[in-house]
Amino acid sequence: MTTQPAGTTVHSSQPYNAEPPRTALADRDLTPVDAFYHRNHAAERPRLDPATWALRVDGMVERPATFSLDALRERFREHSEVVTLQCAGNRRAGLMEVADPPGETPWGPGATGTARWAGVRLADVLREAGVAPGATDVAFTGADVAEEADEPYAVSVPLEKALADEVLLAWSMNDAPLPSAHGAPVRVVVPGWIGARSVKWLERVTVADEPSRGHFQAVAYRLLPADDAPAPGRGVALGPIAVNADVLSPADGAEVPAGPVRVTGDALAGGDRTVVRVDVSTDDGATWHEADLEPQASRWSWRHWHTTLDLPAGTTRVVARAWDSAAGVQPADPAELWNPKGYVNNSWARVTLHAVASGGG
Amino acid sequence: MTTQPAGTTVHSSQPYNAEPPRTALADRDLTPVDAFYHRNHAAERPRLDPATWALRVDGMVERPATFSLDALRERFREHSEVVTLQCAGNRRAGLMEVADPPGETPWGPGATGTARWAGVRLADVLREAGVAPGATDVAFTGADVAEEADEPYAVSVPLEKALADEVLLAWSMNDAPLPSAHGAPVRVVVPGWIGARSVKWLERVTVADEPSRGHFQAVAYRLLPADDAPAPGRGVALGPIAVNADVLSPADGAEVPAGPVRVTGDALAGGDRTVVRVDVSTDDGATWHEADLEPQASRWSWRHWHTTLDLPAGTTRVVARAWDSAAGVQPADPAELWNPKGYVNNSWARVTLHAVASGGG
Repeated sequence: MTTQPAGTTVHSSQPYNAEPPRTALADRDLTPVDAFYHRNHAAERPRLDPATWALRVDGMVERPATFSLDALRERFREHSEVVTLQCAGNRRAGLMEVADPPGETPWGPGATGTARWAGVRLADVLREAGVAPGATDVAFTGADVAEEADEPYAVSVPLEKALADEVLLAWSMNDAPLPSAHGAPVRVVVPGWIGARSVKWLERVTVADEPSRGHFQAVAYRLLPADDAPAPGRGVALGPIAVNADVLSPADGAEVPAGPVRVTGDALAGGDRTVVRVDVSTDDGATWHEADLEPQASRWSWRHWHTTLDLPAGTTRVVARAWDSAAGVQPADPAELWNPKGYVNNSWARVTLHAVASGGG
Repeated sequence: MTTQPAGTTVHSSQPYNAEPPRTALADRDLTPVDAFYHRNHAAERPRLDPATWALRVDGMVERPATFSLDALRERFREHSEVVTLQCAGNRRAGLMEVADPPGETPWGPGATGTARWAGVRLADVLREAGVAPGATDVAFTGADVAEEADEPYAVSVPLEKALADEVLLAWSMNDAPLPSAHGAPVRVVVPGWIGARSVKWLERVTVADEPSRGHFQAVAYRLLPADDAPAPGRGVALGPIAVNADVLSPADGAEVPAGPVRVTGDALAGGDRTVVRVDVSTDDGATWHEADLEPQASRWSWRHWHTTLDLPAGTTRVVARAWDSAAGVQPADPAELWNPKGYVNNSWARVTLHAVASGGG
């Protein structure tokens, strides 16, 4: 395993689920591979041999095909894109303070990260295979078999998204070969959508006329009403990500000197939207002031922000929220959006800072 | 003037600004022209002669051109689309209960409506003119001159949106010629975006490499922080609409028989999103139940919903909220999003119903 940053939280070892501390994500466009969150469903990670690996493209296509890794590299142009991935369970811990979604991983704000991904456009591969009339969805099947589902991990995206320039079949992460832990030899990267659609250890791309009936789309990763329970087809499949933000530095609970304190964080608009404003409050949202936005590394990446707060000695709760380019804003309270599987907590971010007067107060 | 429904609110007569009562919008896919809201900036409405009217296409195009109405009809294929328009000031009255944005029209929930619009695709016209390399935005100029700006009404949309299939130059509304009051002979219809971009009495389409510097994009129709004041370039230009909903029937304040009461409303996701769920609460959001969604007339139209509430005798506040296809949800409280110009109130909808027991209680 790689060298993970101090403060990494391992939620489970089989399957391996882990997130970095928030400070490891702060102030850099690209998240180092060692600090990138791990979200697995299978107890054992697939280890695929790139020399024998092949991608099957089938379903509603005119020319079903199988591509070796070399064939993908030779046949199609390489593209790269800086993309933020974010788990639908990111920030679930905030929902668990309202009520516990049993059996779910208590993700903090670290189930997100940004990398430069390189590979081929899914659209180029689909055009080569020829999408048949009537097709509406494109499913991805990975080599990992989750215990909870007893079937290979499989989900889909609408054909319109599958054909968009930004969707990649990636073999490279941050200018190095894609690590086994992140889906080698090839994974899907679906910018703007929940991480669950960016299938790792990809083995098959299937064009169809309906969304995937796989467990992780038909049962899991769905938004359920608070009084409902998971069952096939209940609720709504999660897809694009809603606007979200968090404070990344200082750490939650940190002791800081009283006076001016630099506070930084991330924000992600989701879908094809951008973050246009981030507000910070030290009075629980009664008043806000605007943070400064950093330039975005790409249309599909998070947006870092920073501000300086003049903190009096004592404890301050810092609240942050983002607005997207449709003037969509985060809801205030996790209780408003509590749901049985604990997804999409995009309520206002809150961290507590303890400011200590330099005189030793 | 047309025959407007009883209960229409005329906010001002010069410029003419008016909205129908919410019940006039309830339970029908298409809003009758008589019930469609009027939002004007000029004291006098332009009256253009279709026989002499011409559309100029200029700026960063390879073949600047002028089209008469007949030329548009002959040269390009007609397309129609069911589209909901919504003013950025819709539901401003809810923000005014928090604090008054001075000088702004106190719109209720009726500054929205849905029509079948027919005309030509803007993309077809732009392709005929040939968009020059480096172009990024497409501006629309109307014939109306607002007193507050002393310049013809002009705004723009990004080139990517301008080239999308759904953007129309429309001469027909609900299968009849576009009325003068709604922009005849030709208006722009920009689905998913604030109504302010759907320019009426269109005279000019200008391709450019920057957004419009017109008053109604550079100064007005911008989201400002609560402690800021309008000035050129301050805040963020509003564009796509954030998810929103309202109760349309029964009317706010209505007296109804105690027992089962059918409650209906509208919801709009904005941008290219769809409404995936609407929740209704009778305990101010402590608990919710899911409303039934009606089929959508088109991808670009609102979504009606209905539910039946069992109302006890007495006063009940009914709260509704919608979720979009990115799991974006409306914020609870208008105070959270109060802004100096009073735009984008997409806080939870609230109406009060008075239920009377049949025994005469």
